[in-house]
Parts: sequence; C-alpha cells; structure tokens
Amino acid sequence: MHEKCGVVGMSLTDRSAAHPLYYALYALQHRGQESAGIVTHDGFQQYDHVEMGLVGDAFTEQALEELHGTVGIGHVRYPTSGSVDACCAQPFSVSFKSGSLGLSHNGNLINADAVRDELAAQGHAFTSDGDTEVIAHDLARNLLDGGLIQAVRRTMGRIHGSYALTIIHDDAVVGVRDPDGNRPLCLGKIDDGYVLTSESAAIDTLDGELIRDVRPGELIRLDPDGTGYTSYQLEEHTHSAHCFFEHVYFARPDSVIDDNLVYEVRRELGRQLWEESGVESDVVMPVPDSGRAFAGGYAEVADGVEFAEGLMKNRYVGRTFIMPTQDARERAVRLKLNPIKSTVEGKTVTLIDDSIVRGTTSTQLVEVLREAGAEAVHMRIGAPPIVAPCYMGIDMASRSELIAADRSVEEIREEIGADSLAYLSIDAVARALDTSREDLCLGCVTGEYPYDIPDEAADRDVTRPAIGEDPVSPAD
Amino acid sequence: MHEKCGVVGMSLTDRSAAHPLYYALYALQHRGQESAGIVTHDGFQQYDHVEMGLVGDAFTEQALEELHGTVGIGHVRYPTSGSVDACCAQPFSVSFKSGSLGLSHNGNLINADAVRDELAAQGHAFTSDGDTEVIAHDLARNLLDGGLIQAVRRTMGRIHGSYALTIIHDDAVVGVRDPDGNRPLCLGKIDDGYVLTSESAAIDTLDGELIRDVRPGELIRLDPDGTGYTSYQLEEHTHSAHCFFEHVYFARPDSVIDDNLVYEVRRELGRQLWEESGVESDVVMPVPDSGRAFAGGYAEVADGVEFAEGLMKNRYVGRTFIMPTQDARERAVRLKLNPIKSTVEGKTVTLIDDSIVRGTTSTQLVEVLREAGAEAVHMRIGAPPIVAPCYMGIDMASRSELIAADRSVEEIREEIGADSLAYLSIDAVARALDTSREDLCLGCVTGEYPYDIPDEAADRDVTRPAIGEDPVSPAD
Amino acid sequence: MHEKCGVVGMSLTDRSAAHPLYYALYALQHRGQESAGIVTHDGFQQYDHVEMGLVGDAFTEQALEELHGTVGIGHVRYPTSGSVDACCAQPFSVSFKSGSLGLSHNGNLINADAVRDELAAQGHAFTSDGDTEVIAHDLARNLLDGGLIQAVRRTMGRIHGSYALTIIHDDAVVGVRDPDGNRPLCLGKIDDGYVLTSESAAIDTLDGELIRDVRPGELIRLDPDGTGYTSYQLEEHTHSAHCFFEHVYFARPDSVIDDNLVYEVRRELGRQLWEESGVESDVVMPVPDSGRAFAGGYAEVADGVEFAEGLMKNRYVGRTFIMPTQDARERAVRLKLNPIKSTVEGKTVTLIDDSIVRGTTSTQLVEVLREAGAEAVHMRIGAPPIVAPCYMGIDMASRSELIAADRSVEEIREEIGADSLAYLSIDAVARALDTSREDLCLGCVTGEYPYDIPDEAADRDVTRPAIGEDPVSPAD
Amino acid sequence: MHEKCGVVGMSLTDRSAAHPLYYALYALQHRGQESAGIVTHDGFQQYDHVEMGLVGDAFTEQALEELHGTVGIGHVRYPTSGSVDACCAQPFSVSFKSGSLGLSHNGNLINADAVRDELAAQGHAFTSDGDTEVIAHDLARNLLDGGLIQAVRRTMGRIHGSYALTIIHDDAVVGVRDPDGNRPLCLGKIDDGYVLTSESAAIDTLDGELIRDVRPGELIRLDPDGTGYTSYQLEEHTHSAHCFFEHVYFARPDSVIDDNLVYEVRRELGRQLWEESGVESDVVMPVPDSGRAFAGGYAEVADGVEFAEGLMKNRYVGRTFIMPTQDARERAVRLKLNPIKSTVEGKTVTLIDDSIVRGTTSTQLVEVLREAGAEAVHMRIGAPPIVAPCYMGIDMASRSELIAADRSVEEIREEIGADSLAYLSIDAVARALDTSREDLCLGCVTGEYPYDIPDEAADRDVTRPAIGEDPVSPAD
Repeated sequence: MHEKCGVVGMSLTDRSAAHPLYYALYALQHRGQESAGIVTHDGFQQYDHVEMGLVGDAFTEQALEELHGTVGIGHVRYPTSGSVDACCAQPFSVSFKSGSLGLSHNGNLINADAVRDELAAQGHAFTSDGDTEVIAHDLARNLLDGGLIQAVRRTMGRIHGSYALTIIHDDAVVGVRDPDGNRPLCLGKIDDGYVLTSESAAIDTLDGELIRDVRPGELIRLDPDGTGYTSYQLEEHTHSAHCFFEHVYFARPDSVIDDNLVYEVRRELGRQLWEESGVESDVVMPVPDSGRAFAGGYAEVADGVEFAEGLMKNRYVGRTFIMPTQDARERAVRLKLNPIKSTVEGKTVTLIDDSIVRGTTSTQLVEVLREAGAEAVHMRIGAPPIVAPCYMGIDMASRSELIAADRSVEEIREEIGADSLAYLSIDAVARALDTSREDLCLGCVTGEYPYDIPDEAADRDVTRPAIGEDPVSPAD
Repeated sequence: MHEKCGVVGMSLTDRSAAHPLYYALYALQHRGQESAGIVTHDGFQQYDHVEMGLVGDAFTEQALEELHGTVGIGHVRYPTSGSVDACCAQPFSVSFKSGSLGLSHNGNLINADAVRDELAAQGHAFTSDGDTEVIAHDLARNLLDGGLIQAVRRTMGRIHGSYALTIIHDDAVVGVRDPDGNRPLCLGKIDDGYVLTSESAAIDTLDGELIRDVRPGELIRLDPDGTGYTSYQLEEHTHSAHCFFEHVYFARPDSVIDDNLVYEVRRELGRQLWEESGVESDVVMPVPDSGRAFAGGYAEVADGVEFAEGLMKNRYVGRTFIMPTQDARERAVRLKLNPIKSTVEGKTVTLIDDSIVRGTTSTQLVEVLREAGAEAVHMRIGAPPIVAPCYMGIDMASRSELIAADRSVEEIREEIGADSLAYLSIDAVARALDTSREDLCLGCVTGEYPYDIPDEAADRDVTRPAIGEDPVSPAD
Repeated sequence: MHEKCGVVGMSLTDRSAAHPLYYALYALQHRGQESAGIVTHDGFQQYDHVEMGLVGDAFTEQALEELHGTVGIGHVRYPTSGSVDACCAQPFSVSFKSGSLGLSHNGNLINADAVRDELAAQGHAFTSDGDTEVIAHDLARNLLDGGLIQAVRRTMGRIHGSYALTIIHDDAVVGVRDPDGNRPLCLGKIDDGYVLTSESAAIDTLDGELIRDVRPGELIRLDPDGTGYTSYQLEEHTHSAHCFFEHVYFARPDSVIDDNLVYEVRRELGRQLWEESGVESDVVMPVPDSGRAFAGGYAEVADGVEFAEGLMKNRYVGRTFIMPTQDARERAVRLKLNPIKSTVEGKTVTLIDDSIVRGTTSTQLVEVLREAGAEAVHMRIGAPPIVAPCYMGIDMASRSELIAADRSVEEIREEIGADSLAYLSIDAVARALDTSREDLCLGCVTGEYPYDIPDEAADRDVTRPAIGEDPVSPAD
Repeated sequence: MHEKCGVVGMSLTDRSAAHPLYYALYALQHRGQESAGIVTHDGFQQYDHVEMGLVGDAFTEQALEELHGTVGIGHVRYPTSGSVDACCAQPFSVSFKSGSLGLSHNGNLINADAVRDELAAQGHAFTSDGDTEVIAHDLARNLLDGGLIQAVRRTMGRIHGSYALTIIHDDAVVGVRDPDGNRPLCLGKIDDGYVLTSESAAIDTLDGELIRDVRPGELIRLDPDGTGYTSYQLEEHTHSAHCFFEHVYFARPDSVIDDNLVYEVRRELGRQLWEESGVESDVVMPVPDSGRAFAGGYAEVADGVEFAEGLMKNRYVGRTFIMPTQDARERAVRLKLNPIKSTVEGKTVTLIDDSIVRGTTSTQLVEVLREAGAEAVHMRIGAPPIVAPCYMGIDMASRSELIAADRSVEEIREEIGADSLAYLSIDAVARALDTSREDLCLGCVTGEYPYDIPDEAADRDVTRPAIGEDPVSPAD
C-alpha cells in the first residue's frame, strides 16, 4: 500500500528556493521514493532537475545551486498511472507559446484517456501515458486564450478525479485542490515566503507555520515576490470526499490534514477501537511502526492492560534481500519482525495494526507470536476492512489480492489464525475525524466511490459479503 | 556512537551454510554497516566473499551459491582500528602451512602493536594494520606445533583486550570470548546445526533456540557434522568485565545477552530512572527509537503521567543529505525529528533518552520542544554520564567531544537548556543487570578500565569533576 | 569535431528486429556515443528502450528481448541542438490520435524555432528544445488529415535544414532524406528484410547488400512484411548539398556514401594532395588513425618516399584523464601520440592528416617530431582549411576557435611551427568525389551555406583572408 | 593472449611522484587493464592506492594528491597466478619489522609453491595465492638480518622463474630483473629524477631519455634524492632467455626493449617474411592493428604489390556485447572487422598478422575476405607457430586451444581455409632481434623452456608434429 506522490510549491522574497524545496521534499519522502524533482524560475527562465531515486540521492549541492530563482515547485513520486521510468518522473516541464510550465501532481484522473483523446484530435502528441502530461497540454492550450487562473479553471472543468497540484508558470506558483478535496494540500508561512505542500510537516521542517488547508476547488496563487498569496474559489464546493486513509496510514503523524493532527486521529481511532471491540489481555502491543499510535490510544483507555513493544523491527531489511526458497520467504518475517519473548511468553496478547491488506504479514505475525509462547493473540485493526481497490491515487493492491474483498471478518480471522479479530466501524472513523461519512471518500471500505470509475463494475466480479456491516468477528 | 562488529559461526548437518549465515548477518546488521563477509569450507577448500556495504548489497544469490560447505563464519563490520577500506573488511582469511584460516573479530586488542612487533621480529609481514591479522598470524604460528584448541589457548595467552571471535580452520568452527567477557557471544541450536553469534536475535531469525552465553575465557568448538559442540575453558574466569552499553544502546532489544533480555533491562533502567529522579510532568515521551523502551518502563511506574510519542522520526534521513550552511545544519534536527504539537504544546514534558554523547542532539531537541510550546522540558537519561572514551571496541567519540568529560550534570543541563536533567546511577545499572559493579566494564562512565590502556593517561588531560558521583542535576 | 547522429530503420519478414537493430547501431557507434535507442512495433503496440551511453552499455539481452516486433528504428546520438541529457536521447517517441510515432534524426533544422512557434500558437507544449520533437508534433498534426506519406510531405514543406530521418508509425517504417541530401542515408537488403541506415557499413554488419543511396528529397517506405519497399520522391531534386566532410572525416572508411567508397575517396584525396603540393621528404607518415588512408594514397603516387608509422597511438587515453597542471596538459599529447624514433630521427618528415580544427594537436605533433629529431616537418592536409562553423549537424567548434577562421595558410604554418603546410583545394575535393562544387555543401570551407542560417552574419564578425583561395602556404 | 603486468618505479628530486607514476602507468596500460596501483613514501610513511579497473578510472586527482612523497612504484595488472579479485591487485604492500615494503611484479615464479611452503613451515600465513606475496614475505624475513640489497640477493637465490620487479622499502626504490632477463625492465632519466619501467615508452611520456635496459640479474637502486642510481649485479649473467613475443605482440611499437626498437623489429620480421615465404598477390593488407608494422615491412621489400587497408576495425566493440545465438557469434567478426570491398574484390590478397593462437579469428577473416570477393587469400604470419603454452608470465591459452599444438602448417592452412599459409622461422626471429636462438625464450614455439616447469610434462599429452620445423605450408 503506497501513497503515490507528494507535492510542494514555494515563493520566497529573495532567497533561492532550491534548498527549502529540497528540505520540504525530504519531509515528504514517505509519499514517494521512486523519483524526486524540483523546477524553479528566476524571472527569465525555468530550471529543472528530476531524477530517479530518493531525495538525498537525486540532488547534489551543485544540482541545487543550478536551480536559480526564488520560486519553484517540487515532487516526490510513487508511480500512479504511467509506467515506472525516468520519463514519468515529475515535476513535468513543458515550454509552449506563453512561456514555460511545470506541474507536480498527486492524485489520479479518471477521465484522463478521454481528455487525451480530445487533445490528440487537435493534433497533440504525447511523450508519456501519464495524467500529468494531459493536464499540461490542456493548460498550455487554455493559456493561448487567457491568464493562468482562467486556464486552470477551464482545465478543472474538463478533468475529473483526485488531484492536488502545484504549478509553476514562468514565475507564478499556484496550488490547486480538486473540488472534492480528495488529496491533501495546505498553505503555510515561513520567515521569508509562502509554501504550498501535501503535508504540514514540510512547513515545520522549514520552521514555518501552517496557515490552513487549501479548500476543495480552491486555487492559491503565491505572489512572485514571496510577500503574500491570493485565493480563487474556482469550483463551488458542495461536499467533500477526503481520503480517510491519509489519516490512517499514509500521512506523517506530525502533519495536520483537514484540520486534524494525524497523530491525534490515530490515538482516537485506537480509543474507539477499545470502545467498539476492546478485549481483555495481559498485554497490548503495536505492529511497529504503523500500529504504534493506535495502540497508544487503545492502551490509554483500556483498563489494566500493559502496553509493551513485543515485536522488534529490523530497520535494515530493505529491497535487496535474497530469498531463494519458499522456506526462506516465510522466514523473512522473522528477519523483519522478531518477537521479544518476555512480553509474549505465557501471555494473552492484543496486537494492534492500522489495516490489513493482503493478510500475509498478519498471518505470519500471529504465528510468530504463538511460537514465542503467546496464550492467545487478538488482532484489532484501526480501520474498517478494505474491500475494494483505490482508484483515487493510492496503490493498494488489486481486488483479488485484498483479503477482505470476498471474506467476512470471521473468515479473515480464521485465515490469519487469530483468536479474535475486530476492525473499526466506518462511523467510528467519521467520529474520530469529526466529520460525516458523506464528506469522506470511503471507496476502499464500501466499494462505492465518489466518482464513476470507468471499468470499475467489470473489475468487481468477486463475491463478497455485504460491505461495511459488522466489522467485528463473531469470535469476539 | 557505533558498535564495531558482529560475528557468527555455524556448523550444519548437510545443508549449505551460506544462506543461514547471510540471514544471521542480516540480523546483526545494526552492529556494522561498512562491510559484510562470509567464509565457508566444504571439507576440501575454503571459500570467501567479503564486500564493502550492507549485507543486502554485499551478496547476490550467485555469491551465496558459490560459498560451498556446511560450515562457515560471517562478519559485519564497523571499523575498529585499521583504516576504513576494503582490505580491512572481515572475515580475515589466510592460508598457511596447516591449511586455511578465517577469522571474525568483535572487540579491540590493547597490545596488538606489541604482538605485531614480536611477530615482525620473526619475519612476519602484515598487509593491514588491523588487530585481526595479528591474531591470524599468531594462530598460524602456533598451529605449527599443535592443534587448533592448543593454538588458540597460546594466542589467548599473548593477546590482551576485548574479543569475541569466530574462527574457521579448515572445517572446524570455534567461538572464543575474551577472559573478561567484554564483548558478547552466545551459542544456539537450530534444526540442523549449531550457531555461535554476537546476539541471540540472529538465532531467532533462524528459528533456533538460544542455549547459553559463551562463558568468559571459554572456547566452543562446533562439531563439523553439525551434531554437537564441545566446550573448552581456555582461561580461568575470575571476574567479568561485561560491557553494559550493549544493553543500554547497541544490542537489539530482542537479544538476550549474559542472561538478560535487552528489552527488559531497558524497561527496568527506565523504572529505576523514575525511582531515582522521577519528575512530575504532563507527558513523558521517548527520543525515538533509542529511548522508547526506557520511556515505557519509566511511564509504567510513574503515576498519572501520560506516555506519548512527541517526536516524529523521518526514517529517510540518511547519509546523503546536503547541508550547505550553518543555518541548514541547525534545521537538520527538524528534518530528522519533528515535534507532534498536540502532545507538547502547553505541557510539561519529560524526554527520555538512553545516553548523551556530544549533547548536540539533546540541545536541539530541547529547543525544538520549547518552540513547539512545551512549558518545561525535563531530560532523563537511562545511563550514567559518559565521561571517557571506550577503548574496548566501541566508537564513541574522542574525549574532548564528550559533553560530560569535563562538565558536571548541572553544567550539562545548562548547556542543553533543559529545565532539569538526571542520569541514572551506576548502581542502578548494576541492579538492572542483576550483577555487581565489579563484573561490568564501566570505563566510559568512570574512566577506570579493566585493562591498562596504553596512552590512556596522556589522553586524559582534561579537567573534569569527580567521576561517577551525583548523576542528578541540582536543578531537579 | 563530432558527427552528430546515426539512424537506422528496418523491416524483417518474421524475425524480431531488435538484435539486428542493435548490431546496426554498433556499426554506427562512431556517429554518436552519448545515447542509444531502439523503437519497435509488433503490430499492436510500440516498444522503446533509450539510454545514455554506448550501445554496448545501453542494452542488455533482456532489454532487447522486450523490444517485440519485426519492424523498428534505432539511433545513436551526439547532441545537436537541445541539451545533453536523457530527455533528448532518441528515437523520440510520442503517442497521438492515430497511433504511435518514433523518430530518429540526423541533421539540424534551421527553422526549428519558427515551426515550434507556429505549433505553440496552436496550443502545442514541448518537453524538450530539440528539433526532433518539433518534427514529431508537426507530423502528428498532419496525420490528423492524411496518411503517413502525405503527412511527411507536408512536414517537409515546412521544415528547412539537413535531415536524414527514420520514422516508425505503427508498423510502418520510412526513411527520408532532405531535398539537398546533406546527411547520408542509404537502403540495403538483408536475407530476410530491408534496412535504412546512415552508412552502408551497418548493412555489411548484417551480411546484407547495399541497394543504393536514398535520393535527396526521397522517402522510402519499407513494407511491414519485410518483402519490399516503395519510393516516393516527395520533393523535386534540383541540386545537392552533400556534406563532403562525411568522406573526409566522419564516415567509416568501409562505407559507401553517395556512390563513393569512403576509403577510396580518402586515398584519392591523398593522391591529389601529392599532385597539388607534394614535397620531397625521407618519410611520409599519417597522424593515426585519421590520416592513414590519405597518407596511403599520397605515398602510393609519391616517388621514392618511404611510408611508415611514426606516431604510436595510445588507445587507452580516454575521457577520464587527470591533467591538473598546464605542464601536464602539454604532456598529454605524448601520452596520446608518441613518436617512433627510428622513423623520425635525422629525417625529413611529411605528416599527413585529414583536417586541422583548432590547431592545438598539430602544433604539439610538430614539436614532438622535432624533439624526436626530425630534420624538417611538412604538414599536408587532405581537405581545404575550415574557415567557418557547420550549421548542418556537425559539432566542429565555434568560429573563434577555428585556427583558419582568420589566418592565412602561411600564418597557420607559422602558428603550428611546420616547415611547410599545404591544404587540398576545393576543386580537388570535388574531383575526388566525382561531382561538381555546386553539389556539395562547402559551408565550413567557404563560409557560404546552402541555406540562410539565422544569425550567421552576426556570428561572422572576424576578419579573415579571402576564403577558398590558395590553400598552399607560400613557404612550400 | 595477454601480457600480464607492467611495472614502474621512480625517484624524483623534490616533486611528488604520484602524477608522473600515473602518467607512466597510462603509458603501460596495454600491459594490464584489470587493476592499477601506486605506492609512495614520503620519508616517514608509506601511502598506497590500488583499485580495480583502468588507470584512468582507478585514480582521481584527490587520490593522487594523497600519495605523498618523491619516491614510489606503480603497477598495472592482468592476473597471472592468483584469482582475479581486488586482493590480488598490486603493488602488494606489507608492513614488517624494518618498515614498509611495496612490490610490483611482472612475470611468473615457477617455484612459488615450494617457497611458500618453506615460509609456511616457519609460521607465515598468506592472504592470497599470488607469487608476489611470497616474494614479499621472503624479503621481509631476509630484511631481519640485512639491508635491502642483501635481502633481495637472498630472495633471488630462492625464487626461480621470470620477474621484473620494482620494490619500495621505506624511501628506497629498486628494480630487479631475473637472471635470464625474461621480462623487460629498463632505466631512464627524466628532468628531475630516475625511472625504472617495463617499457621505455613510459619514459618518453615523461619527456625523459632511456638510459639502458636493466641487465639480467641486475638490481638498480635509485638514490632517494632523485639524483642518481647504483647498479648491483646480484646474479652472474651467463645467458639470456628474453621473451621474443614482447617484440612480436605485447610491447608498444615505440618501446625499445633489449636494445631493439619494437617497431623496427616488426618491420624487419615483415621483411624476413617476404624473404622466406613471399607470395605474389595484387594487394597486401594487415590485420589491424596487430599486423600493420609487419605488413609495412613486407610490402616495402615486396615488388609491385599494393599495400592497402582492407579491413576496417570497429574500435567500439568491447567487452559489453550481446551475442545470444551462434549465428550472431559468427557475425561478431563482421562487427569488429569489416572488409573494404574496393581493396578486396576480384583481387588476390596477402593478409599479414603477427600470430595465430586459436585460429578462430583467422578462419573468420579468410571467410570474410572471400565473401568480399577476394580471388585468393594468402596468410603470412610474422612469428613461428605457437605450439605450447607460456609458463613465464603470458596468458596465451591452454595447450588444447592452440591451433598449432597438434597440427602441421598445412593442416592449419586447411583449417582456416587460406590458399596458402606461412609462418616465420625461428632463425628469422633471432636474426631480426640480432641475437642467437640460445638467448631467447622460445618455449611457446618449441615446447622447450629455459626452466623446468612443474607439471609441464603431464600437460603435454597431445600428439603433434615435430616442433620448429618447416613453418611453411606445402601449399605455398
């Protein structure tokens, strides 16, 4: 399960934007590890540096120094649509009649093919199959007839889907959030300028202050001289479709998204989990690191249960790991997460995680804990079951890989071998976020999306129990 | 502060040892990230593969497949003495009259130069300036006149310092621990063989069981057919000089060292910390990840104090990070550890860490918490002040860099800007380890070493307050 | 002085085109070492692989195997206009309304900016500042209204400059040569298909036969089934502007270009050189490797002069060479070309090269030969003096760097320190090529170009003697 | 067929030796491309830098600047005995009782195992299985009892085989050549110091003058202050065993070895070839580049035959070349060497090369020339048939791979498909080198070696015609 991108935009009074953009991307690194890029403008021309790899590897000091100008945008990427190669790394830069344009995109258009076809019918040729080039071409075309704000408005009228965009057009930097606010974007003030970014933690990194979230359908234009910003409500906002998984999984705990501090939301989800399906046990422990805040909240309100780390995470287990045999593949979980016997042996254990996707890791963890001597293993999950894929910009898994796509909670419990299993209800999620179900995108836990997804029906040919009901296994 | 090596040795009944050795090294990766190596023997000849870099990068599947034989040793390295280049990576292999020899060494000899000079006077020539080559040459010489056990005994009679060694001589694998047991080494049983390793977590990774620690001065010889082992007490054991920092900092929490589970020791050190210098505050929070277990123990026995994560760690901050200006260098701490405002703002905070070396990070964290709105910041450290360098195999810092080398606790408190500061007493450490002060190496916290360190006196020309007294700042 | 690209196109009956394209690119490697790429089509979709570096480094066996289809094009590149980075490597691929398109381009458009502006005014956005993207967009636009042949005809009506193109549109492969035939392109037959390529040596590599040169203004369309080809004379051919430097310097000696075998042309230029300015000397020697064929021809007709290798070339001197001081920089020529004393000492020497660009190497060689004991050093150059830059696709040097831009032959002789110096006349070049001056592009040796080069006048503000007159130094 | 190493040593008056050593290694690059290294000494300590790869890749400017001192040695390596990895790269450095020692070795010891065993019996342990470590250990042992000259004398009394050594012991640099002078070594003077090197071309590169060859059995000691040198005849010289293949193949044409300029020797061998087995043909052409000087000499004395380049060499064909099928493997020769039709078609051709090892390339070239229309292809080889492997430091091929090991000249002619084939006689080689057969090592062309090669007899179990007789195929 991967977040698919992080974006940033910045305008400073008289300092080069390259280093601050670099630090901001470092703070957003968890949102994309495949490529990193920065585009700046110095009033005369556009500069760009985009490379595959982590932020720290993609830039050298010299590369930063060659990115002249006090305004710029940046991007970290995990591939959405479009293939995973160098040509799809962002920001996406083009030159056209009225100058130069750079785009950073987080999200997923659902009508990209249709818009591309329309543009192609007008003679456009595309070098990639990504959404972002489609937006860039449409903007370039609209900019023939008007200014940037007007052009973005027209493009927003044509594209549908989720997007948080930062755009640089010559020395103008703007940020735009889709009319439903699906992907996060916020505005902050630093000492000598303004910042637009996917997460407020990037503003903290620059010793700045979060001003507010960009509103769904709003465009924020940063003044090129770094002294202020202007808001344009390009699309009327009627309801939201915020992605609740940003809070559950993707975003950093220290970020504030749509007015909620992620860490506090997770603690609260943990408390709700105890309220809805608390179970007596000797010890409650998180799956590190994802379940830690949930477990903290759960333990806080649970009476008498000891909170302890019961699984040691090996931080060196990375992509380069040789697993030649099936035997070894199973052992990999012991390399990655080893039980701390003293907190497990002879005890009943409640294991807290944020979500279950395929179920493989959960199955292995339950087994590992049993082997380490756990009397009982209860799993509690700080979100509802994931029953359907995400079409809005998150790489979860295909429907057939999702353990909850066609299984009841009891069936999942049996599959992973836990003594009991409980998920959190959707209502609890809404409560923790202090909003209504209607203002959340719940596609992955209900199968009902805020947009008509092309081919979604065809994709949905698996049998499964009624969705969103009774998230607690009967075994509890 | 870096642990300087991890070692492993193994003998299996009829499976190639290469993959299990690789997994064991993966489990020991935290003990050395500069190089990794494996030496095996198939009864006819010795095979080796040693490379710079992490375990996952140093080996390919093909490299493992070419390491034939059911017995072998392995090593991960952070450089001790000797320069940091490829030639000093281990295991160190030599061929000599009686066959081939491979050595993996964790520790530091204090009379390496003297032994080298003696060997040189007999005509030996050395390709490196490392300890390990000295041991290898001495062993090779002793093996002219006797068997392996006898040769190791003679070599142990000549070398002084800390060492945990795994040695492969043709198809014999042995493990040896120095007579004071300064560096850890333990013995385990897996399904089809026996394992010697720096930490028991490596045995867990192979689904095995820890049998026991190797005793100070003991040599364990694994049967070449993987069916058993023999113990030889080569040096009489009178007292120990176990490194307590293994428990405080270096070892994995899930390892058992000298009969103590590291995680439990840290929890207990946290509890002792509350007993000795507990302070009322709204919230207690760890410096992640090093202070977490300490903070858990502290919070467990502290009444009414909320345990929370207050600092978010950016796991992507690595070695490749551009910090061109002093300004940016200070900001680096915000990139690495960002406060979670809700758990800090308007609150009194107790921040728990395992140790303070230079004090730079502590200073920055206190400042970061104050900027995030903390009313007060109390620091509690789960170990005594580090007043002197380690000469026994840990890369701490030079004496002049140690903040506690010439400062009282109150002076350190002032330096780092905390409202109060307390370290743990040496007695509390001994209690937590269920041993006496006399059986611990306390050199780094007392300046008195279990061995005469050459040039240590010359090195000690800094004024400092009496050592080991009153670890609590008067401000508390 | 660098050739700027090599192109190839291929259609086979039923074998994958990837390997043959790879071998063809290997044969064209001398025309571009910065990047290499192949685009194929299997009837359903287009595949591409483009990487920086030499052909041998850019492709792996797996990369070739994933390039499905019996038709394809390829490219090796030395950057023309456009920056030297990954995004400008070719073939340039786009998808558009009617399918997919790949282009390989050798040459240089002189009105690229104007065409780009026109397309931008219609809303096109460009990801690079290269010529080739302009051609691709224009083609894509023209393909809205017609077939490929018609679209290329229209595009050719808009673009001006030098070009040899191979184009793949879905499974159709075509080759086009500009109306003046400035850059070479030829057609060949191999066992199971047809090949279009910059040089016939690539056809030899595939054990095929050269059919003929593509005519200026002609388009050759390869049948998708590999069984034949069709010719379309898209622009009427009135006169040629063949680049004579292909014969003098760039092309392989074993290639046939515009009906002339390059090796024979060079031998003939050498013979002409003797006719025009032969000088008595003990020995005649080439500057290796460039002057070898010229010297062979010269020596063949010279009476009594001994032909010998007098300079030894170090083939390992490459790009990674450390030259920290001016002193060392001068020594570099001795590393690269060392005299063989026996053929130089005490002798009068005629040194033959193909051209002089900056004059630095010539100066050093004369000095090196004198130090080795040469009694006299006569230089003979197998081409006229280069007095002006190339705007048609060759990277020669800027005007101010050209030694002949503002010097008479006598002044050059003095500069390089030779006893005598003679260039070849333009008429001799025309004779050797068996054509008229009017059918050659002589821009670099006359300063008069077959096209109006924008900004060429401004560029030409250096004083120089009358061009094209008296190529022989008075000293002879 | 590969030369196996190049060595250099240097002492300068007051300039750092690092850069001159680097340039010298660049000039010796053809003698070894696997690794490169330099060891220097500044009067206080030894510095070294050894890396895998070409000279230009192995050193950076910074690496050179860190090699302090005015004296040093260097090495380029193609692996002799010992495995091909980083640990066997040279110079080989050791520290021992009396200081530090670095060795660069070209050659091959035939009793290395025996000497190693003797040292091992005294307790020595070896990190590699290379000759050079054996020499280093023996020297270190001998240096216990005496000075460097005395120690080298003793070591020379124990080792047997071929060697040209440069040795640095603290700030003393010496060069030694084995008593038979098998491998080359010479002495030169540069502006500010003295140089010992495998080939005089390296002295030219430094603008120096060759003084003379080091004599067989002689040691030259360079004064540490760069102002002179002293000669010690350590072993009496009775006869020589110079390697004639240095002149035929390995050495640079511009080097002088044992008083003969290599280029002139090759020209003379070509002339002798015409005398012994000249054949009428329309054209004589070299296999580039190895046969060029031979062909030049041949053509010079041949009446009426045209000398021409008939094969074009593709200089980009390197190690990274994909050849998936047998078909492609055969084609590789066309990629590497393409015929120039005009010089081949309809003509009788004499193709000149320096030697035939396996015969594969010769077979392909004959075929390629026939396909290009040659009426007849006569091969003439500038050396006698290679009938046995080299045990003295050259990597030729195993006996079973040598086409001439068990075939008569006529059988070889048939195998490669030439119309006629002739080798040069051994007497002609001796004449060209102005020496007697007795002073040459002719092992590879007679099977009789100047030393008793262990296991050579066992190796020689192939039937072959009488050796050294009648090198001309009856077909001529």
